[in-house]
Amino acid sequence: MFKKILIANRGEIALRIIRTCKEMGIKTVAVYSAADKDSLHVRFADEAVNIGPAPSNQSYLKIPHIISAAEITNADAIHPGYGFLSENAEFSRVCQEYGIKFIGASPEMIDKMGDKATAKDTMKKAGVPTIPGSDGLLKSVEEGLKIANEVKYPVILKATAGGGGRGMRIVKNDSQFQKAWDDARMESAAAFGNDGLYLEKFVEEPRHVEIQIVGDSTGRACHLSERDCSIQRRHQKLVEETPSPAVSQDLRERMGAAAVKAAESIGYEGAGTVEFLLDKHGDFYFMEMNTRIQVEHPITEEVTDFDLIKEQIKVAAGEKISGKNYFPKLYAMECRINAEDPAHGFRPSPGKITNLHTPGGHGVRIDSHIYAGYTIPPNYDSMIAKLIVTAQSREEVLVRMKRALEEYVIEGIKTTIPFHIKLMDDPKFKSGQFTTSFLEGFDFTGMQ
Amino acid sequence: MFKKILIANRGEIALRIIRTCKEMGIKTVAVYSAADKDSLHVRFADEAVNIGPAPSNQSYLKIPHIISAAEITNADAIHPGYGFLSENAEFSRVCQEYGIKFIGASPEMIDKMGDKATAKDTMKKAGVPTIPGSDGLLKSVEEGLKIANEVKYPVILKATAGGGGRGMRIVKNDSQFQKAWDDARMESAAAFGNDGLYLEKFVEEPRHVEIQIVGDSTGRACHLSERDCSIQRRHQKLVEETPSPAVSQDLRERMGAAAVKAAESIGYEGAGTVEFLLDKHGDFYFMEMNTRIQVEHPITEEVTDFDLIKEQIKVAAGEKISGKNYFPKLYAMECRINAEDPAHGFRPSPGKITNLHTPGGHGVRIDSHIYAGYTIPPNYDSMIAKLIVTAQSREEVLVRMKRALEEYVIEGIKTTIPFHIKLMDDPKFKSGQFTTSFLEGFDFTGMQ
Repeated sequence: MFKKILIANRGEIALRIIRTCKEMGIKTVAVYSAADKDSLHVRFADEAVNIGPAPSNQSYLKIPHIISAAEITNADAIHPGYGFLSENAEFSRVCQEYGIKFIGASPEMIDKMGDKATAKDTMKKAGVPTIPGSDGLLKSVEEGLKIANEVKYPVILKATAGGGGRGMRIVKNDSQFQKAWDDARMESAAAFGNDGLYLEKFVEEPRHVEIQIVGDSTGRACHLSERDCSIQRRHQKLVEETPSPAVSQDLRERMGAAAVKAAESIGYEGAGTVEFLLDKHGDFYFMEMNTRIQVEHPITEEVTDFDLIKEQIKVAAGEKISGKNYFPKLYAMECRINAEDPAHGFRPSPGKITNLHTPGGHGVRIDSHIYAGYTIPPNYDSMIAKLIVTAQSREEVLVRMKRALEEYVIEGIKTTIPFHIKLMDDPKFKSGQFTTSFLEGFDFTGMQ
Repeated sequence: MFKKILIANRGEIALRIIRTCKEMGIKTVAVYSAADKDSLHVRFADEAVNIGPAPSNQSYLKIPHIISAAEITNADAIHPGYGFLSENAEFSRVCQEYGIKFIGASPEMIDKMGDKATAKDTMKKAGVPTIPGSDGLLKSVEEGLKIANEVKYPVILKATAGGGGRGMRIVKNDSQFQKAWDDARMESAAAFGNDGLYLEKFVEEPRHVEIQIVGDSTGRACHLSERDCSIQRRHQKLVEETPSPAVSQDLRERMGAAAVKAAESIGYEGAGTVEFLLDKHGDFYFMEMNTRIQVEHPITEEVTDFDLIKEQIKVAAGEKISGKNYFPKLYAMECRINAEDPAHGFRPSPGKITNLHTPGGHGVRIDSHIYAGYTIPPNYDSMIAKLIVTAQSREEVLVRMKRALEEYVIEGIKTTIPFHIKLMDDPKFKSGQFTTSFLEGFDFTGMQ
């Protein structure tokens, strides 16, 4: 087992990793930017190394500085957390070269899963469901009609050079096809100087459902069931839960098997997440694979009793997994508490926390790096705490989450707590019947 | 279901009850003494009533004041917590008279279990193992010898008027009996003016193991397995854990069955605890029954996923239990954090908390009513927080508890945290092989 792990991250995830290392008897090294010198991860680690000024590209993203810190402190492994260098193939490669174990994916694996087109192709070949459509550019309306009938309507035409919704058309049947084709080509040509189109099946009323997997060096993988992350604002997850209200045990087993197949097909080692879009018919499609720990991993820990950071460390140290899949025994939900003002477009609200009181009691877990008197620097991600609640049913989770949110006192800055409180009372959210576009129609006024 | 519950208590248990009420959609009324006006239970309840000055007999023990508060606020039930009026038969009776549901035992039940001799007699008749011995006073050495051989040595001779260890003699065999008899009688006569002796089997190397039970109005009861509370200082529990390192599944089932028998034999309704002494041979003996929620109830909640306060409320409202027994799926431990200085005989250390930081992360639960800036009044019990840790093995619980204790920052007063940290490193404690006298030999120096 490793003797000393350097944590190439900050905030709650650095603290999260330090906690598990302490419990495993492994020494820890924190790295920090000048802006983070008063951070808890610095205080709780056994050693701490200043790696540069606040901008991430001069500290947390600065590979030579981090490697130097590991060498100076004799760390034999590096845990990258999430974000920053966690999915950086070069960093993984440099760690290898320096004989420091990178607790994450190999450079090859990161390369393979980092490019979306390559990843989709790899998964398709492995027999994992991907969104069906044309192989690249469509040559003609006729080809488009043929493929649309194969993959079944509705379909979506997309500009190959596109983005931001331009050059896109949803087509519901044959009779709409020609007009959509003409409109999309014209719009693409005007917007991007390129009228090339490709076609995909349009995923109706999608939910974001991801499967947690763990693989070991023997090539074996297992899954720990799903997390539903459909509550997003501008593709940023705000609330995650498990089990998903949209996933039956049968579907869970099929999605889990697909995720295990995805992982085993590439010999994936470590903890990873296979993200799927789940449509209203119960069909699911591979979106991408994250080759790192996710922000929302605690809800899986709460319902399976796994310590996922410990699993990462054990697998990186060469230990084998049992290969058994795990299914949720309870219900858990996470609210991301951000230093943002939800009443004003979630604008960042860094500053000093003048008063702090954290909720407690049965089924309440807090993962956070803040403390009373701490000043949140403006340089980084605005997430300041994760409030994780566990109970015996989704209904109980909702009331417990609301009670915990109401106990949470964070003064001096604005936070997303009022948004979460309002969400817990929202009938549609409570019903469990929502899609990734749910928050587009949400009323952000009247929050206290 | 009740609409509004008055909580006739203070501190963490008042907050604990408020939390469950909030989750159940039940309104709450806090009562408070003048010394407690800034307490969290006052802040978090829907309503709060001042019931008098600090001394408990003028506020928290003042039945008319509490009943008035319930009447004024239209509370339809009263939860007494633990301590104070929780096992006061008169209070239970007055609540009945006023048509307010007392969430606890009936006056008859409290009377029956409140007197130790009556309780022991009741249990013996019901077939629950009690410590065997003479029926009251011994008439002669010959009778004593006869009973000693029936219950098997070692036995203990006790002064009927005794206390504080005087007039007591442990006897290991027939040949020691006469001398022990003479010595004990002489000592008793000198100390109490009464030389009457009785005899009991001497419980060797006892552990305090208690079984949580829940009964409903149909007379049915179930158990939720054991809690080991052997870590005591002067009969005050400091650390509790479940499962007990000394209890096998077979023993658990037998102790559980005995506790259920105890509860059902008296038609017990509500949550209760049957306390046993467990000796080194695996034999167990009824000590007493607590007809209320226990301080250490959270460890049972953590390993069975029950909310025991919710169970109390449901049963009080007439709901039926399933009758199924529950066995621990995980390991949990509670450390009582007291405002006491463990390096100086655990002397009380009330005062203002100048800085507070609570631990978090996987498997960590805090039940506490303190906050930064709160002044702990000198009038009450010194317990200020319960740190509850859960994990997949006892070894993991120990390391997690230590890491959580080390994260806990409570400044301005002395606390028992340094004692608990030292305890977590103690080889004998870690081995699980200890008895109720373990702390008598503990080295309380060198704590930081």
